[in-house]
Amino acid sequence: MGILIKNIDALPSADGPAALGVDIGIDGDRVAFVQKSGSPLPPGFAAGRTIPGAGRLAIPGLVNAHCHAAMTLLRGYADDMELETWLFDRIFPAEAQLSGDDIYWGTMLGAAEMIKNGVTCFNDMYLKMDSVAEAILGSGIRAAVSVGPLLTGKRGDAGVDADSCKAFFRKWDGAGGGNIRTNMEIHSIYLFQPETLAAGARLAKELGSAIHIHILETAAERENMLREYGKSSVLLAEEYGLLDSPVIAAHCVHVDSAEILRLRDRGASVAHNPSSNLKLASGIAPVPEMLRAGVNVCLGTDGAASNNSLDMFMEMRLAALLHKGASREPAAVPAAQAFRMATRNGALALGFEDCGEIAPGRKADITIVQLDRPHLSPLHSHLSTLVYSARGSDAETVIVNGKVLMENRELLTIDEEKTTHMARAAAKKFIASQ
Amino acid sequence: MGILIKNIDALPSADGPAALGVDIGIDGDRVAFVQKSGSPLPPGFAAGRTIPGAGRLAIPGLVNAHCHAAMTLLRGYADDMELETWLFDRIFPAEAQLSGDDIYWGTMLGAAEMIKNGVTCFNDMYLKMDSVAEAILGSGIRAAVSVGPLLTGKRGDAGVDADSCKAFFRKWDGAGGGNIRTNMEIHSIYLFQPETLAAGARLAKELGSAIHIHILETAAERENMLREYGKSSVLLAEEYGLLDSPVIAAHCVHVDSAEILRLRDRGASVAHNPSSNLKLASGIAPVPEMLRAGVNVCLGTDGAASNNSLDMFMEMRLAALLHKGASREPAAVPAAQAFRMATRNGALALGFEDCGEIAPGRKADITIVQLDRPHLSPLHSHLSTLVYSARGSDAETVIVNGKVLMENRELLTIDEEKTTHMARAAAKKFIASQ
Repeated sequence: MGILIKNIDALPSADGPAALGVDIGIDGDRVAFVQKSGSPLPPGFAAGRTIPGAGRLAIPGLVNAHCHAAMTLLRGYADDMELETWLFDRIFPAEAQLSGDDIYWGTMLGAAEMIKNGVTCFNDMYLKMDSVAEAILGSGIRAAVSVGPLLTGKRGDAGVDADSCKAFFRKWDGAGGGNIRTNMEIHSIYLFQPETLAAGARLAKELGSAIHIHILETAAERENMLREYGKSSVLLAEEYGLLDSPVIAAHCVHVDSAEILRLRDRGASVAHNPSSNLKLASGIAPVPEMLRAGVNVCLGTDGAASNNSLDMFMEMRLAALLHKGASREPAAVPAAQAFRMATRNGALALGFEDCGEIAPGRKADITIVQLDRPHLSPLHSHLSTLVYSARGSDAETVIVNGKVLMENRELLTIDEEKTTHMARAAAKKFIASQ
Repeated sequence: MGILIKNIDALPSADGPAALGVDIGIDGDRVAFVQKSGSPLPPGFAAGRTIPGAGRLAIPGLVNAHCHAAMTLLRGYADDMELETWLFDRIFPAEAQLSGDDIYWGTMLGAAEMIKNGVTCFNDMYLKMDSVAEAILGSGIRAAVSVGPLLTGKRGDAGVDADSCKAFFRKWDGAGGGNIRTNMEIHSIYLFQPETLAAGARLAKELGSAIHIHILETAAERENMLREYGKSSVLLAEEYGLLDSPVIAAHCVHVDSAEILRLRDRGASVAHNPSSNLKLASGIAPVPEMLRAGVNVCLGTDGAASNNSLDMFMEMRLAALLHKGASREPAAVPAAQAFRMATRNGALALGFEDCGEIAPGRKADITIVQLDRPHLSPLHSHLSTLVYSARGSDAETVIVNGKVLMENRELLTIDEEKTTHMARAAAKKFIASQ
């Protein structure tokens, strides 16, 4: 039995106009049809559940292309300081205290927050990724999870733990009815030796894995790489073979024009994180230039410790606004472009090719936004209202892989009260240390 | 009979720590006490109404220091274009069609949106200000309303309509139990002749009025003023006598260092509108420099046609984030500073000296934020949670001048459904023209 969303306005993708007054049919995990409301149902389709759509807007679920979901535990723990101080003096020591259970509940809290903000899919990189994947599986959200096989130690050890990486991939790739995909984390160029990075690149190719990496978040990274290697992180990534695999490069705040073209030519995607880049004073990524060059730019929240939110509506709006102001070009990132970055571009970057738009045959990842609110009235333009005026809290119903995860703002797969309680308990050790 | 808010955490002002587990007493229009929860009530205080505070945060109501509330009618009507095109080709022609009734409902919609976003006070400038003031009076929100006596016509007419200005002041100044204050609008330097501006300055002095003005929103204004007069708008405003009165200067995106010092020395306040400045590609105001110089910088949303929202939580967060990223200084606008800009600084700018903090004797303008939510958990820091993670939709209860305007997100003084309906009807003429 399918799901029928009745008489709703929709923005099926960023590339077309709004569809007014349509019925959307969901059969299993996929969209079966989008048709004028009241038309006869296609033969063989029977609605086991009907969701009222009047006064609402259906959009493809938002895709958070760069996140560390369990960092919800450190939300507000350290603010208003340099990235290096923040990361090495506050965040890394705190993270060293996190147990698998802590990370499970932190991820679950992040999943709860994202679903409540209309996010249907995210890209995660963190520690103890089995705990992360367990929480994702339980929540029903879609995610790419990146496990890091490179042996850590800043410029100390070299090498790759291929076995545990392969085991993780075997266990989790395709889990949850295909909701979970596995990727390889290579945290960054600056944390590892060249031989280690090259070994990681070979492993990614062997596994056919995409690589999730931080690239040039700060000016300091660029300066350090230039000083030490005579070239910057994108060119180094290419030299080590990392760009031979599909890459999701988070940040790219300090890429130059040549690097933008290399990213474009090698088919790498860039996950732009405007809130985090501003908050950590990293700067403003050259997003308009990347878009003009044809780079697949998507959007992320980064972790809640540097944002301090996992609200992709906020990132979509901020991406649309920030680059207009920074470049003094009022059409630098138009509303449709921001919407595309927050949906289809993210889905493509994460390898979920069947996600990121509402169309027959696509995966049924749909967010329903309640429009009947003062701050969304009047309704001159669905697209403008979505990008510039709507907020995460306007997401009313969220469907992932054909399954309703939130209805009327109530989470159906996550015990919100217990999750919030458990995450708070896990975070207490840090509160005590303040 | 007073109001007792029981056992709540509070951020009484931006200048001190959070007060945990306090009772807040309100007597008439003022805060009577803030004391450890459960302490004996002061003699003579009787609570006619008790509001539960556990799991919540009380803050001074947010002050929106620059708004055109009725522009809610044009929300999403024209986006992603140059300010001059937007203003002269789209907005001004649309506004010419607005009746007093339209403006009444547009303002009421704006008041509804602001109250639902935890705003207790705003600074308005628009057309047909009697209709604006009527809506404000009905809503119970606090506001400074600016009426424009300068005869319009771009560099055509000169002169001032003093009589209607005086009549407006007599009718509205102090109305609504002191909730309404009147100011003089001088739209901008660039729209009027020098003699007209000088006449306006004399009238403001005669009336003891503050002046609400747009200054240097765009680089084009700066260039035009320099070309035509050999100096820029702040120095011209001073020359014409405008800075002899208290001034609320909206935008100041393109002020130079000398002008910042003039604004500081003359006691002018600057209303910073980060979303609007970004969206219209005006640029990024030198807020850190203004703050270092000691200018009273407050925050505004501007109209909903250039934002497209009246959510001061969003502006507070964006002000805190934007200037860190733009200046690459992670403490450029710390959370406490953004909170101060959104509360006390705004109240001072608008001449509501008794507002903008929660303390005995101050006006009871209080917003209660619901903390028990995934995106506000865990609670490492009340201040960080408020500025970086909270949203307008987290405002649960709003009190203005000792009167509850919203309780559990339900508006008590505004018919939300009717207001939204009437504003939509008023906006239809523009929808049809798209």
